[in-house]
Parts: sequence; C-alpha cells; structure tokens
Amino acid sequence: MTTSLASSILVTIIGEAVLQDRLIQLLTKLGVSGYTIIPAQGAGSHGKRMGDMAGYNTNVEIKTIVTPATSEQLLENLKPLQSNHALIAFCQTVNGLFD
Amino acid sequence: MTTSLASSILVTIIGEAVLQDRLIQLLTKLGVSGYTIIPAQGAGSHGKRMGDMAGYNTNVEIKTIVTPATSEQLLENLKPLQSNHALIAFCQTVNGLFD
Amino acid sequence: MTTSLASSILVTIIGEAVLQDRLIQLLTKLGVSGYTIIPAQGAGSHGKRMGDMAGYNTNVEIKTIVTPATSEQLLENLKPLQSNHALIAFCQTVNGLFD
Repeated sequence: MTTSLASSILVTIIGEAVLQDRLIQLLTKLGVSGYTIIPAQGAGSHGKRMGDMAGYNTNVEIKTIVTPATSEQLLENLKPLQSNHALIAFCQTVNGLFD
Repeated sequence: MTTSLASSILVTIIGEAVLQDRLIQLLTKLGVSGYTIIPAQGAGSHGKRMGDMAGYNTNVEIKTIVTPATSEQLLENLKPLQSNHALIAFCQTVNGLFD
Repeated sequence: MTTSLASSILVTIIGEAVLQDRLIQLLTKLGVSGYTIIPAQGAGSHGKRMGDMAGYNTNVEIKTIVTPATSEQLLENLKPLQSNHALIAFCQTVNGLFD
C-alpha cells in the first residue's frame, strides 16, 4: 500500500460572483483547464462598503490545482482586480492524486 | 513578475447550520469582518447520534483569514460549542492576496 | 488562553457527483464516520472530454479529517476510480478542534 503522491499548489480564489466569467477566462489564458466552482456568501470590508441589503454578497469560490509557476502568475494577474472588487486568493501546497 | 504575498491563517469552521448566527456574532466580537459561508451537508459522530432522517445534517462551512492571535482566540471561543453541537474547526497557514 | 490543538489530515476529494454514494461507502468501509459534502461545478480534462452541454460537470466536494494512515488508505482506494471518472484528492495537515 504505497501511494505515489504528487505535490502541487492548491489556489483558492474567493470573490464576487460577478467576477466568475473573468476568472475563468484568466484561468484559460494561463492554460489551467481544471477547476472547481462553489457558490458562497461573503462578508468583508469591501462587502460592507457596498452596503448590499442583507449584509452579504454573493460570492464564488474557485479552486484549482496548478504548478508553483502558474500559481504565481495567477496571483499576479488577480492583483489588479482587488482595486475594484472584493477578492482574496491564497495558495497551499498539497499532496494527492491529480487528474 | 514578483508577487509580494502576505502570510495569514485560514480558519475553517464546519458546524450545524443552526450555529451560523452565533458563529458570525463570535467573528464580529473578535473583530473579524471578512468571512465566507458555504452551505454543506455533513455526517459525523454527533450527526449519527441525532438520528435525523436522511442520515445527514445541514451544516455550514465558514472560512476566514485572520492573524495567528485571532485564530487562537477563535478556536478557544469555539471549544465550548463542541459539547452540545457537531462542530470542527481547523487552521492552516496560507500565502496570498488578502483584502 | 491556551488551546490544545490536535494535528490531523484533512482529505479533500473532488469528483463527479455520480461518485458520491460510492465515495461514502468507501469512507464507511475505512471506518470514517465524519465527513462534509458540498455540491460543486467543475471543469477539467475529463470534463471536457465528456462534452457535456454547458462545459461544466456536476461535481461534489467531500472533506474529511482522518489519521495519516487512513488518509493513505483512502487515496490508495481512490486511485482506481481515476481511470473512469474525473476525480482529484489531496491531503493537508491541519491543526484544530475535532469532534
């Protein structure tokens, strides 16, 4: 029972749902073909400033497993979105079975 | 292409959906203004004891990015909830772009 | 304010929703009684080959906290599923409050 596990970078992006198409286009541009999308609700500093009714924003969480180089490019490309949109993104090294 | 990444603590709380308001109040009390909420289904030792029909409970997953000190306070404050509710919480160090 | 935290392995499995029952049976077989299920949408190499209409598959994300030995068994048992199904799985060490 030995499992040969690959090591990769899990990137999690959480942002306003309105960004979903743009985020997928960015992933495609960077050659990332696999990702997972989960609808979420969020509150945050941006969210509160925007003053939406229920105090929550409709967010989306996108996860992808990429190489260290791609994760760096991805975060670099996400940075400009932060000036106008509620968005966070973070990286974690994971070991596992990848497609 | 150099991305200056901040290092922070990702805290993930998974508990019964009935706890949602109380968890958000706790986050607010600790000065945490940003978090993400995702509805989930769960099974677990508590869940099984509660004998709900489908074998699943309605759970909620709350994620937040905080400082190490706040993550410690948060877990300390969550501990008492575990005696009466199905609840887990865990911390991970992440690098990324935060709001 | 000292929190005695346990260290455990968080295993995240993301696969086609059609695998959900089989994945839960596998968890049960390995003695894993606690897990969380979140519906998700996914795109990936397998997904694209399957040519579903919207370009997305209906996926499911299952998370569980287990011992290192169980995480290894779990991934070993998941491996064969990858030949016929879109499925990824990865492990992370986490510290926290567990049930």
